[in-house]
Amino acid sequence: MAKIKTGVKVFAPASIANVAVGYDILGFAIDKPGDEIIVNFSDTPGLKITEIRGAKGKLPFEVLKNTAGFAAQKMLEHIGEERRGLEMKIHKKMPFGSGLGSSAASAAAGVMAVNEILGRPLTKSQMLPFAVLGEQIADGAYHADNVGPSLLGGMQLIRSNDTLDIHRLHVPKGLYATVIYPHIKVLTKDSRSILSDQTSLKQCIEQTGNIAGFIVGLYNGDFDLIGRSLQDVIIEPQRAQLIPHFYEVKDAVLEAGALGCSISGAGPSIFALSANSLIAEQVGEVMTRIFTNHKIKNELFISTINQEGAILI
Amino acid sequence: MAKIKTGVKVFAPASIANVAVGYDILGFAIDKPGDEIIVNFSDTPGLKITEIRGAKGKLPFEVLKNTAGFAAQKMLEHIGEERRGLEMKIHKKMPFGSGLGSSAASAAAGVMAVNEILGRPLTKSQMLPFAVLGEQIADGAYHADNVGPSLLGGMQLIRSNDTLDIHRLHVPKGLYATVIYPHIKVLTKDSRSILSDQTSLKQCIEQTGNIAGFIVGLYNGDFDLIGRSLQDVIIEPQRAQLIPHFYEVKDAVLEAGALGCSISGAGPSIFALSANSLIAEQVGEVMTRIFTNHKIKNELFISTINQEGAILI
Repeated sequence: MAKIKTGVKVFAPASIANVAVGYDILGFAIDKPGDEIIVNFSDTPGLKITEIRGAKGKLPFEVLKNTAGFAAQKMLEHIGEERRGLEMKIHKKMPFGSGLGSSAASAAAGVMAVNEILGRPLTKSQMLPFAVLGEQIADGAYHADNVGPSLLGGMQLIRSNDTLDIHRLHVPKGLYATVIYPHIKVLTKDSRSILSDQTSLKQCIEQTGNIAGFIVGLYNGDFDLIGRSLQDVIIEPQRAQLIPHFYEVKDAVLEAGALGCSISGAGPSIFALSANSLIAEQVGEVMTRIFTNHKIKNELFISTINQEGAILI
Repeated sequence: MAKIKTGVKVFAPASIANVAVGYDILGFAIDKPGDEIIVNFSDTPGLKITEIRGAKGKLPFEVLKNTAGFAAQKMLEHIGEERRGLEMKIHKKMPFGSGLGSSAASAAAGVMAVNEILGRPLTKSQMLPFAVLGEQIADGAYHADNVGPSLLGGMQLIRSNDTLDIHRLHVPKGLYATVIYPHIKVLTKDSRSILSDQTSLKQCIEQTGNIAGFIVGLYNGDFDLIGRSLQDVIIEPQRAQLIPHFYEVKDAVLEAGALGCSISGAGPSIFALSANSLIAEQVGEVMTRIFTNHKIKNELFISTINQEGAILI
């Protein structure tokens, strides 16, 4: 007779990496979209992926080639549970290649789901390295600027990706994100390959001043300082060319009252931060109108900084 | 009959610029050394410098060529008091070319003294641009990473030197600075000219991570994070060659328990931060012993982060 199957269902949210001033080291979670993963016990030893929805057949069922599967498998090996019979169902509810941390959400959901069904052997912080490993097989790089927020929630600083020296930043009340995903294809590897591996000392000084100002603004609740600081002088000028109408959107968004606006992750999504939900909504209308006028399909998300990250649902 | 001469005497402290992770944008004040300036009213219209002590004849008496004089004069013009009869006596009580913000202390003391004798027409923040102008004639650059702390006190972030977007950072209790000035000649223009005007993106990312981690460490009182963050991967490796025995000192200082250690300003002074005064003193003994063993004269200063800056004495 089969074991009683007590399943768990978890959700891990999208995330905005880089945040203008923290290339590779800063990211925050939003409320939605995100990915759902269901895990059930099974009689057959080992982890299996039995269902993938919403990925248009693009994601592998092979555990070690799948972001969520790999992350979960490495965690299971770490805790000595790799022989446990587990079936994983992945419901992709967010787009690939959007710059919203899609693979990171899958990786975060993967470790979260397995950890939940096993009675939480690990804390979220202990799960993080395995989620990062999972995203690495999709993205090639070992970095936590999407996975960190997607799993842990909040605005996360990753001082060092090598050591996963990660810190939740204080976020003032009222801070809202508006994020638009225009249906334009930008491959992460393209948006990485166009970046110069050099920068000027002057730009680097400006960028250090801006990330420092941004953090002080967050801690002091100084929205003006957050706004003045949200300027990416290094990455955005190189990547903006990959996103049609980027500067038209950015100019209009700042005109509408946003504190700042830049590229979400590797793009093509664009995010803005605002001091309250009303401005965030006006900013959203502006973003939508511009892409729609240009006949580019788009999806809009308005959210506080999601403080929960991956959750059991 | 001459007017009654009611004079004021002010002190402005030395400061540590750059602080490893904030080249041109971070600095803090220490309790001493520093400069004193005395200002008295005079019957003769205009500002005059009537005495300069401790500068070995190296500082000009001509107001517009003297750091303190220029700063004070520009401020007097701003408030419409340039015809006021004022005599300034400058007592240099700290060395030139030490990397301790000597010219900045003079500029800060200059504006502070004139402002005090005139009954405080300006706030310290309003005085700051004139002090920065004063230092500029000594240093060539318009930046506030020494002048800001010397005038305002505290650990100061200058997000932008162009706009003097300056912010006092929270400093946790217990944080101590140990600073040694080895009597070695390093000219600021040399230490600027050896710097590459390019840096790698990788180093820039590390530096942004480190300044961000440093600030989060300060705000959270997380001394371990402060320590991990206090790593200058851009400037220090280029400038260390100008300071004999720098790495011997740094290694020994970290071994003695300091959180971090780097070059103060343009050098040759070296600073360390420690989590309490006992470690700061042990660090000081280590620094002194090494330079003394190498037969290099040196002066040691141990201090909290001075929160007052320029004061009336």
